[in-house]
Amino acid sequence: MDERELTELFKKTFPFWDKMNEDDRQTFIRTSHHVHFEKGTNIHDGNECTGVILINSGSLRLYMLSEDGKEITLYRLFPGDMCILSASCVLKTITFDVFVDSEENSECVVIGGCAYEELSRRLPEAKIFALETAVSRFSDVMWVIQQILFMSLDKRLAIFLLDEVSKNGSDTVRLTHEQIAKYMGTAREVVSRMLKYFAGEGIITASRSEGIKILDKKRLRALLS
Amino acid sequence: MDERELTELFKKTFPFWDKMNEDDRQTFIRTSHHVHFEKGTNIHDGNECTGVILINSGSLRLYMLSEDGKEITLYRLFPGDMCILSASCVLKTITFDVFVDSEENSECVVIGGCAYEELSRRLPEAKIFALETAVSRFSDVMWVIQQILFMSLDKRLAIFLLDEVSKNGSDTVRLTHEQIAKYMGTAREVVSRMLKYFAGEGIITASRSEGIKILDKKRLRALLS
Repeated sequence: MDERELTELFKKTFPFWDKMNEDDRQTFIRTSHHVHFEKGTNIHDGNECTGVILINSGSLRLYMLSEDGKEITLYRLFPGDMCILSASCVLKTITFDVFVDSEENSECVVIGGCAYEELSRRLPEAKIFALETAVSRFSDVMWVIQQILFMSLDKRLAIFLLDEVSKNGSDTVRLTHEQIAKYMGTAREVVSRMLKYFAGEGIITASRSEGIKILDKKRLRALLS
Repeated sequence: MDERELTELFKKTFPFWDKMNEDDRQTFIRTSHHVHFEKGTNIHDGNECTGVILINSGSLRLYMLSEDGKEITLYRLFPGDMCILSASCVLKTITFDVFVDSEENSECVVIGGCAYEELSRRLPEAKIFALETAVSRFSDVMWVIQQILFMSLDKRLAIFLLDEVSKNGSDTVRLTHEQIAKYMGTAREVVSRMLKYFAGEGIITASRSEGIKILDKKRLRALLS
Protein backbone atom coordinates (compact mmCIF):
# COMPACT_ATOMS: atom_id res chain seq x y z
CA MET A 1 0.00 0.00 0.00
CA ASP A 2 1.41 3.39 -0.94
CA GLU A 3 0.89 6.61 0.98
CA ARG A 4 -2.08 7.64 -1.14
CA GLU A 5 -3.95 4.37 -0.55
CA LEU A 6 -3.13 4.49 3.13
CA THR A 7 -4.48 8.03 3.36
CA GLU A 8 -7.67 6.90 1.60
CA LEU A 9 -8.17 4.11 4.14
CA PHE A 10 -7.56 6.45 7.08
CA LYS A 11 -9.99 8.98 5.65
CA LYS A 12 -12.63 6.28 5.21
CA THR A 13 -12.16 4.91 8.71
CA PHE A 14 -11.52 7.92 10.93
CA PRO A 15 -14.23 10.60 11.09
CA PHE A 16 -11.64 12.86 12.74
CA TRP A 17 -9.04 12.65 9.95
CA ASP A 18 -9.77 16.21 8.84
CA LYS A 19 -9.12 17.47 12.36
CA MET A 20 -5.67 15.93 12.60
CA ASN A 21 -2.72 18.17 11.88
CA GLU A 22 -0.12 17.26 9.27
CA ASP A 23 2.39 16.01 11.88
CA ASP A 24 -0.12 13.61 13.40
CA ARG A 25 -1.12 12.31 9.98
CA GLN A 26 2.50 11.67 9.11
CA THR A 27 2.98 9.82 12.41
CA PHE A 28 0.00 7.56 11.61
CA ILE A 29 1.36 6.90 8.12
CA ARG A 30 4.88 6.26 9.39
CA THR A 31 3.98 4.00 12.33
CA SER A 32 1.34 1.92 10.59
CA HIS A 33 2.15 -1.20 8.69
CA HIS A 34 0.32 -3.19 6.13
CA VAL A 35 -0.32 -6.85 6.97
CA HIS A 36 -1.77 -9.66 4.92
CA PHE A 37 -3.49 -12.28 7.05
CA GLU A 38 -4.15 -15.69 5.53
CA LYS A 39 -7.64 -17.07 6.10
CA GLY A 40 -7.79 -18.68 9.53
CA THR A 41 -4.82 -16.87 11.07
CA ASN A 42 -5.09 -16.00 14.76
CA ILE A 43 -4.33 -12.28 14.92
CA HIS A 44 -4.92 -11.54 18.60
CA ASP A 45 -5.17 -13.86 21.58
CA GLY A 46 -6.06 -11.38 24.29
CA ASN A 47 -2.61 -11.07 25.76
CA GLU A 48 -0.59 -8.13 24.57
CA CYS A 49 -1.65 -4.98 22.72
CA THR A 50 -1.75 -5.93 19.05
CA GLY A 51 -2.63 -2.37 18.01
CA VAL A 52 -5.53 -0.77 16.20
CA ILE A 53 -6.43 -2.89 13.17
CA LEU A 54 -8.12 -1.33 10.13
CA ILE A 55 -9.69 -3.76 7.68
CA ASN A 56 -9.08 -2.90 4.04
CA SER A 57 -10.38 -6.14 2.56
CA GLY A 58 -11.52 -9.51 3.91
CA SER A 59 -13.07 -9.97 7.35
CA LEU A 60 -12.12 -10.59 10.96
CA ARG A 61 -14.01 -12.63 13.55
CA LEU A 62 -13.92 -11.80 17.28
CA TYR A 63 -14.78 -14.58 19.68
CA MET A 64 -14.53 -15.84 23.24
CA LEU A 65 -12.88 -19.15 23.99
CA SER A 66 -14.00 -21.24 26.95
CA GLU A 67 -11.71 -23.38 29.05
CA ASP A 68 -12.85 -26.48 27.20
CA GLY A 69 -12.20 -24.91 23.81
CA LYS A 70 -15.74 -23.89 22.90
CA GLU A 71 -15.87 -20.76 20.76
CA ILE A 72 -18.59 -18.15 20.70
CA THR A 73 -18.51 -15.63 17.88
CA LEU A 74 -19.11 -12.14 19.27
CA TYR A 75 -19.10 -10.18 16.02
CA ARG A 76 -17.38 -9.76 12.68
CA LEU A 77 -15.56 -6.80 11.17
CA PHE A 78 -15.53 -5.84 7.50
CA PRO A 79 -13.73 -3.35 5.21
CA GLY A 80 -13.84 0.15 6.68
CA ASP A 81 -14.24 -1.18 10.24
CA MET A 82 -11.72 -0.64 13.02
CA CYS A 83 -10.82 -3.33 15.53
CA ILE A 84 -10.25 -1.57 18.83
CA LEU A 85 -10.50 -4.40 21.37
CA SER A 86 -7.12 -5.61 20.14
CA ALA A 87 -5.59 -2.32 21.31
CA SER A 88 -5.63 -2.70 25.07
CA CYS A 89 -3.26 0.23 25.52
CA VAL A 90 -5.77 2.58 23.88
CA LEU A 91 -8.71 1.51 26.03
CA LYS A 92 -7.15 0.77 29.38
CA THR A 93 -10.51 -0.03 30.95
CA ILE A 94 -10.89 -3.02 28.62
CA THR A 95 -9.61 -5.84 30.77
CA PHE A 96 -11.14 -8.93 29.25
CA ASP A 97 -9.72 -11.22 26.62
CA VAL A 98 -11.09 -11.71 23.16
CA PHE A 99 -9.61 -13.62 20.28
CA VAL A 100 -9.41 -12.27 16.75
CA ASP A 101 -9.01 -14.46 13.64
CA SER A 102 -9.01 -13.53 9.98
CA GLU A 103 -11.93 -15.34 8.47
CA GLU A 104 -10.88 -14.74 4.89
CA ASN A 105 -7.61 -13.65 3.36
CA SER A 106 -7.56 -10.11 4.70
CA GLU A 107 -5.57 -6.99 3.95
CA CYS A 108 -5.22 -4.92 7.09
CA VAL A 109 -3.35 -1.90 8.33
CA VAL A 110 -2.14 -1.96 11.92
CA ILE A 111 -1.51 1.29 13.75
CA GLY A 112 0.60 1.06 16.88
CA GLY A 113 -1.56 1.35 20.00
CA CYS A 114 0.80 3.95 21.40
CA ALA A 115 0.48 6.26 18.39
CA TYR A 116 -3.30 6.17 18.64
CA GLU A 117 -3.26 6.58 22.39
CA GLU A 118 -0.90 9.54 22.16
CA LEU A 119 -3.16 11.23 19.62
CA SER A 120 -6.32 10.54 21.61
CA ARG A 121 -4.83 12.35 24.60
CA ARG A 122 -4.65 15.54 22.52
CA LEU A 123 -7.60 15.11 20.17
CA PRO A 124 -10.87 14.33 22.02
CA GLU A 125 -12.50 13.27 18.74
CA ALA A 126 -10.01 10.40 18.42
CA LYS A 127 -10.70 9.26 21.96
CA ILE A 128 -14.46 9.55 21.50
CA PHE A 129 -14.28 7.54 18.27
CA ALA A 130 -12.37 4.70 19.95
CA LEU A 131 -14.77 4.66 22.92
CA GLU A 132 -17.89 4.86 20.76
CA THR A 133 -16.63 2.00 18.65
CA ALA A 134 -16.10 -0.09 21.78
CA VAL A 135 -19.52 0.81 23.22
CA SER A 136 -21.29 -0.13 20.03
CA ARG A 137 -19.48 -3.51 20.08
CA PHE A 138 -20.64 -3.82 23.69
CA SER A 139 -24.21 -3.82 22.36
CA ASP A 140 -23.41 -6.48 19.75
CA VAL A 141 -21.78 -8.65 22.38
CA MET A 142 -24.68 -8.27 24.82
CA TRP A 143 -27.08 -9.35 22.14
CA VAL A 144 -25.10 -12.52 21.47
CA ILE A 145 -24.78 -13.24 25.18
CA GLN A 146 -28.46 -12.75 25.79
CA GLN A 147 -29.73 -14.80 22.87
CA ILE A 148 -27.12 -17.54 22.75
CA LEU A 149 -25.85 -18.09 26.24
CA PHE A 150 -28.85 -16.95 28.21
CA MET A 151 -31.98 -17.64 26.20
CA SER A 152 -30.49 -20.48 24.15
CA LEU A 153 -32.20 -18.91 21.18
CA ASP A 154 -29.63 -20.41 18.83
CA LYS A 155 -30.57 -23.87 20.10
CA ARG A 156 -34.26 -23.14 19.91
CA LEU A 157 -33.99 -21.86 16.35
CA ALA A 158 -31.81 -24.83 15.40
CA ILE A 159 -34.42 -27.22 16.80
CA PHE A 160 -37.15 -25.38 14.94
CA LEU A 161 -35.31 -25.45 11.60
CA LEU A 162 -34.33 -29.11 11.96
CA ASP A 163 -37.92 -30.02 12.82
CA GLU A 164 -39.23 -28.13 9.82
CA VAL A 165 -36.88 -29.71 7.25
CA SER A 166 -37.47 -33.15 8.74
CA LYS A 167 -41.22 -32.60 8.39
CA ASN A 168 -41.11 -31.32 4.81
CA GLY A 169 -38.33 -33.65 3.66
CA SER A 170 -36.21 -30.95 2.01
CA ASP A 171 -33.38 -28.75 3.22
CA THR A 172 -35.36 -25.54 2.87
CA VAL A 173 -37.72 -23.78 5.25
CA ARG A 174 -40.28 -21.63 3.42
CA LEU A 175 -41.61 -19.54 6.28
CA THR A 176 -41.28 -15.83 6.87
CA HIS A 177 -39.25 -14.58 9.81
CA GLU A 178 -42.52 -13.30 11.21
CA GLN A 179 -44.06 -16.79 11.13
CA ILE A 180 -41.01 -18.39 12.73
CA ALA A 181 -41.02 -15.74 15.46
CA LYS A 182 -44.68 -16.47 16.16
CA TYR A 183 -44.05 -20.22 16.43
CA MET A 184 -41.09 -19.62 18.74
CA GLY A 185 -42.81 -16.99 20.86
CA THR A 186 -40.29 -14.27 20.20
CA ALA A 187 -39.94 -11.12 18.07
CA ARG A 188 -39.35 -11.05 14.32
CA GLU A 189 -36.27 -8.85 14.79
CA VAL A 190 -34.72 -11.48 17.04
CA VAL A 191 -35.31 -14.26 14.51
CA SER A 192 -33.95 -12.14 11.64
CA ARG A 193 -30.83 -11.27 13.56
CA MET A 194 -30.21 -14.86 14.63
CA LEU A 195 -30.69 -16.09 11.05
CA LYS A 196 -28.13 -13.48 9.98
CA TYR A 197 -25.81 -14.81 12.70
CA PHE A 198 -26.31 -18.37 11.36
CA ALA A 199 -25.65 -17.15 7.83
CA GLY A 200 -22.46 -15.45 9.01
CA GLU A 201 -21.39 -18.77 10.52
CA GLY A 202 -22.02 -20.50 7.17
CA ILE A 203 -24.81 -22.69 8.57
CA ILE A 204 -27.63 -21.39 6.36
CA THR A 205 -28.39 -19.00 3.53
CA ALA A 206 -31.53 -16.90 3.70
CA SER A 207 -33.22 -15.04 0.88
CA ARG A 208 -36.69 -13.73 0.29
CA SER A 209 -37.20 -15.79 -2.88
CA GLU A 210 -35.51 -19.03 -1.85
CA GLY A 211 -36.43 -19.13 1.84
CA ILE A 212 -34.02 -20.46 4.42
CA LYS A 213 -31.69 -23.10 3.04
CA ILE A 214 -29.72 -25.26 5.45
CA LEU A 215 -26.15 -25.69 4.28
CA ASP A 216 -24.62 -27.45 7.28
CA LYS A 217 -27.05 -29.69 9.12
CA LYS A 218 -24.21 -31.14 11.17
CA ARG A 219 -23.33 -27.80 12.72
CA LEU A 220 -26.97 -27.03 13.33
CA ARG A 221 -27.28 -30.33 15.23
CA ALA A 222 -24.06 -29.57 17.09
CA LEU A 223 -25.73 -26.48 18.55
CA LEU A 224 -28.10 -28.72 20.46
CA SER A 225 -25.42 -30.43 22.50
CA MET B 1 -30.85 17.53 49.31
CA ASP B 2 -30.04 21.23 49.12
CA GLU B 3 -27.99 22.88 46.41
CA ARG B 4 -24.76 22.64 48.38
CA GLU B 5 -25.10 18.89 48.91
CA LEU B 6 -26.07 18.38 45.29
CA THR B 7 -23.00 20.33 44.17
CA GLU B 8 -20.84 18.16 46.44
CA LEU B 9 -22.23 14.99 44.85
CA PHE B 10 -21.71 16.34 41.32
CA LYS B 11 -18.15 17.34 42.16
CA LYS B 12 -17.46 13.88 43.56
CA THR B 13 -18.95 12.09 40.57
CA PHE B 14 -18.00 14.18 37.55
CA PRO B 15 -14.28 14.70 36.87
CA PHE B 16 -15.32 17.45 34.41
CA TRP B 17 -17.33 19.52 36.93
CA ASP B 18 -14.61 22.18 37.04
CA LYS B 19 -14.77 22.54 33.26
CA MET B 20 -18.50 23.22 33.19
CA ASN B 21 -19.61 26.81 33.00
CA GLU B 22 -22.01 28.30 35.53
CA ASP B 23 -25.03 28.02 33.21
CA ASP B 24 -24.46 24.31 32.64
CA ARG B 25 -24.01 23.69 36.35
CA GLN B 26 -27.27 25.46 37.08
CA THR B 27 -29.02 23.37 34.41
CA PHE B 28 -27.75 20.17 36.07
CA ILE B 29 -28.91 21.37 39.48
CA ARG B 30 -32.29 22.52 38.18
CA THR B 31 -33.09 19.42 36.08
CA SER B 32 -31.91 16.81 38.55
CA HIS B 33 -34.16 15.37 41.19
CA HIS B 34 -33.50 13.50 44.37
CA VAL B 35 -35.09 10.06 44.66
CA HIS B 36 -35.29 7.63 47.54
CA PHE B 37 -35.52 4.01 46.39
CA GLU B 38 -36.75 1.42 48.87
CA LYS B 39 -34.70 -1.77 49.00
CA GLY B 40 -35.82 -4.07 46.20
CA THR B 41 -37.40 -1.41 43.96
CA ASN B 42 -37.07 -1.91 40.22
CA ILE B 43 -35.63 1.37 38.94
CA HIS B 44 -35.10 0.61 35.27
CA ASP B 45 -36.47 -2.15 33.08
CA GLY B 46 -34.63 -1.48 29.87
CA ASN B 47 -37.43 0.28 28.08
CA GLU B 48 -37.32 4.04 28.22
CA CYS B 49 -34.50 6.41 29.16
CA THR B 50 -34.59 6.64 32.95
CA GLY B 51 -31.78 9.20 33.01
CA VAL B 52 -28.31 9.30 34.51
CA ILE B 53 -28.46 7.98 38.08
CA LEU B 54 -25.90 9.10 40.67
CA ILE B 55 -25.74 6.99 43.83
CA ASN B 56 -25.41 9.02 47.02
CA SER B 57 -26.00 6.17 49.46
CA GLY B 58 -27.07 2.53 49.23
CA SER B 59 -26.39 0.33 46.21
CA LEU B 60 -27.88 -0.62 42.86
CA ARG B 61 -27.72 -3.96 41.11
CA LEU B 62 -27.72 -4.28 37.30
CA TYR B 63 -28.82 -7.58 35.83
CA MET B 64 -30.12 -9.39 32.79
CA LEU B 65 -33.42 -11.19 32.92
CA SER B 66 -34.15 -14.25 30.79
CA GLU B 67 -37.57 -15.11 29.39
CA ASP B 68 -38.08 -17.68 32.13
CA GLY B 69 -37.26 -15.19 34.86
CA LYS B 70 -33.64 -16.19 35.48
CA GLU B 71 -31.50 -13.26 36.62
CA ILE B 72 -27.79 -12.72 36.07
CA THR B 73 -26.19 -9.99 38.11
CA LEU B 74 -23.86 -7.99 35.87
CA TYR B 75 -22.44 -5.59 38.45
CA ARG B 76 -23.29 -3.38 41.41
CA LEU B 77 -22.98 0.36 41.87
CA PHE B 78 -22.10 2.15 45.09
CA PRO B 79 -21.97 5.73 46.42
CA GLY B 80 -20.06 7.99 44.02
CA ASP B 81 -20.83 5.73 41.04
CA MET B 82 -22.84 6.80 38.03
CA CYS B 83 -25.34 4.52 36.31
CA ILE B 84 -25.13 5.29 32.61
CA LEU B 85 -26.76 2.23 31.02
CA SER B 86 -30.10 3.54 32.27
CA ALA B 87 -29.63 6.64 30.08
CA SER B 88 -30.15 5.24 26.60
CA CYS B 89 -30.51 8.72 25.13
CA VAL B 90 -26.97 9.62 26.23
CA LEU B 91 -25.34 6.54 24.71
CA LYS B 92 -27.36 5.89 21.59
CA THR B 93 -25.18 2.95 20.60
CA ILE B 94 -26.30 1.06 23.71
CA THR B 95 -29.15 -1.01 22.35
CA PHE B 96 -29.49 -3.85 24.83
CA ASP B 97 -31.73 -4.07 27.86
CA VAL B 98 -30.56 -4.24 31.44
CA PHE B 99 -32.57 -4.10 34.62
CA VAL B 100 -31.63 -1.99 37.60
CA ASP B 101 -32.86 -2.62 41.15
CA SER B 102 -31.98 -0.88 44.41
CA GLU B 103 -30.39 -3.53 46.58
CA GLU B 104 -30.59 -1.46 49.75
CA ASN B 105 -32.54 1.66 50.63
CA SER B 106 -30.76 4.08 48.32
CA GLU B 107 -30.57 7.84 48.00
CA CYS B 108 -30.01 8.77 44.37
CA VAL B 109 -29.98 11.83 42.18
CA VAL B 110 -31.35 11.47 38.67
CA ILE B 111 -30.22 13.85 35.93
CA GLY B 112 -32.39 13.98 32.83
CA GLY B 113 -30.76 12.10 29.96
CA CYS B 114 -31.37 15.08 27.66
CA ALA B 115 -29.53 17.54 29.91
CA TYR B 116 -26.49 15.27 30.01
CA GLU B 117 -26.66 14.55 26.30
CA GLU B 118 -26.92 18.24 25.48
CA LEU B 119 -23.87 19.00 27.61
CA SER B 120 -21.84 16.15 26.16
CA ARG B 121 -22.34 17.55 22.67
CA ARG B 122 -20.52 20.71 23.74
CA LEU B 123 -18.10 19.38 26.36
CA PRO B 124 -16.01 16.44 25.07
CA GLU B 125 -14.96 15.59 28.66
CA ALA B 126 -18.59 14.86 29.56
CA LYS B 127 -18.99 12.59 26.55
CA ILE B 128 -15.69 10.85 27.24
CA PHE B 129 -16.66 10.28 30.87
CA ALA B 130 -19.98 8.68 29.90
CA LEU B 131 -18.31 6.48 27.29
CA GLU B 132 -15.42 5.48 29.56
CA THR B 133 -17.88 4.55 32.29
CA ALA B 134 -19.77 2.35 29.84
CA VAL B 135 -16.59 0.72 28.51
CA SER B 136 -15.37 -0.08 32.00
CA ARG B 137 -18.77 -1.71 32.75
CA PHE B 138 -18.30 -3.63 29.49
CA SER B 139 -15.25 -5.21 31.11
CA ASP B 140 -17.20 -6.02 34.29
CA VAL B 141 -19.95 -7.61 32.27
CA MET B 142 -17.58 -9.67 30.17
CA TRP B 143 -15.98 -10.97 33.33
CA VAL B 144 -19.36 -12.08 34.66
CA ILE B 145 -20.32 -13.70 31.36
CA GLN B 146 -17.12 -15.64 31.41
CA GLN B 147 -17.58 -16.67 35.07
CA ILE B 148 -21.21 -17.56 34.92
CA LEU B 149 -21.83 -18.87 31.48
CA PHE B 150 -18.44 -20.25 30.63
CA MET B 151 -16.96 -21.58 33.88
CA SER B 152 -17.99 -24.66 35.79
CA LEU B 153 -20.11 -24.27 38.87
CA ASP B 154 -17.72 -25.51 41.54
CA LYS B 155 -15.27 -22.82 40.54
CA ARG B 156 -18.00 -20.24 40.44
CA LEU B 157 -19.26 -21.09 43.87
CA ALA B 158 -15.73 -21.09 45.25
CA ILE B 159 -15.11 -17.62 43.85
CA PHE B 160 -18.40 -16.41 45.30
CA LEU B 161 -17.70 -17.74 48.80
CA LEU B 162 -14.15 -16.41 48.83
CA ASP B 163 -15.34 -13.00 47.68
CA GLU B 164 -18.01 -12.88 50.38
CA VAL B 165 -15.68 -13.75 53.26
CA SER B 166 -13.05 -11.38 51.99
CA LYS B 167 -15.67 -8.60 51.88
CA ASN B 168 -17.08 -9.25 55.37
CA GLY B 169 -13.75 -10.11 56.96
CA SER B 170 -14.95 -13.32 58.63
CA ASP B 171 -15.02 -16.95 57.56
CA THR B 172 -18.79 -17.19 57.44
CA VAL B 173 -21.29 -16.42 54.71
CA ARG B 174 -24.73 -15.59 56.07
CA LEU B 175 -26.82 -15.92 52.94
CA THR B 176 -29.48 -18.48 52.10
CA HIS B 177 -28.92 -20.93 49.26
CA GLU B 178 -31.73 -19.13 47.49
CA GLN B 179 -29.89 -15.81 47.72
CA ILE B 180 -26.61 -17.32 46.57
CA ALA B 181 -28.36 -18.99 43.65
CA LYS B 182 -29.93 -15.70 42.64
CA TYR B 183 -26.62 -13.86 42.77
CA MET B 184 -24.99 -16.60 40.72
CA GLY B 185 -27.79 -16.84 38.19
CA THR B 186 -28.50 -20.49 38.84
CA ALA B 187 -31.03 -22.67 40.64
CA ARG B 188 -31.21 -23.11 44.43
CA GLU B 189 -31.01 -26.88 44.05
CA VAL B 190 -27.74 -26.59 42.16
CA VAL B 191 -26.22 -24.40 44.88
CA SER B 192 -27.48 -26.66 47.67
CA ARG B 193 -26.07 -29.71 46.01
CA MET B 194 -22.71 -28.13 45.41
CA LEU B 195 -22.56 -26.86 49.02
CA LYS B 196 -23.33 -30.37 50.19
CA TYR B 197 -20.49 -31.61 48.02
CA PHE B 198 -18.15 -28.99 49.51
CA ALA B 199 -19.30 -30.02 53.00
CA GLY B 200 -18.69 -33.66 52.17
CA GLU B 201 -15.16 -32.72 51.12
CA GLY B 202 -14.62 -30.91 54.41
CA ILE B 203 -14.26 -27.54 52.72
CA ILE B 204 -17.24 -25.93 54.46
CA THR B 205 -19.97 -26.62 56.99
CA ALA B 206 -23.47 -25.38 56.29
CA SER B 207 -26.33 -25.02 58.71
CA ARG B 208 -29.48 -22.97 58.82
CA SER B 209 -28.52 -21.25 62.09
CA GLU B 210 -24.80 -20.71 61.51
CA GLY B 211 -24.70 -20.01 57.77
CA ILE B 212 -21.90 -21.30 55.57
CA LYS B 213 -18.61 -21.54 57.40
CA ILE B 214 -15.44 -21.99 55.40
CA LEU B 215 -13.13 -24.56 57.00
CA ASP B 216 -10.51 -24.94 54.30
CA LYS B 217 -9.86 -21.77 52.33
CA LYS B 218 -6.82 -23.32 50.71
CA ARG B 219 -8.81 -26.06 49.04
CA LEU B 220 -11.46 -23.59 47.98
CA ARG B 221 -8.77 -21.53 46.33
CA ALA B 222 -7.30 -24.65 44.76
CA LEU B 223 -10.57 -25.10 42.88
CA LEU B 224 -9.80 -21.94 40.95
CA SER B 225 -6.63 -23.23 39.34
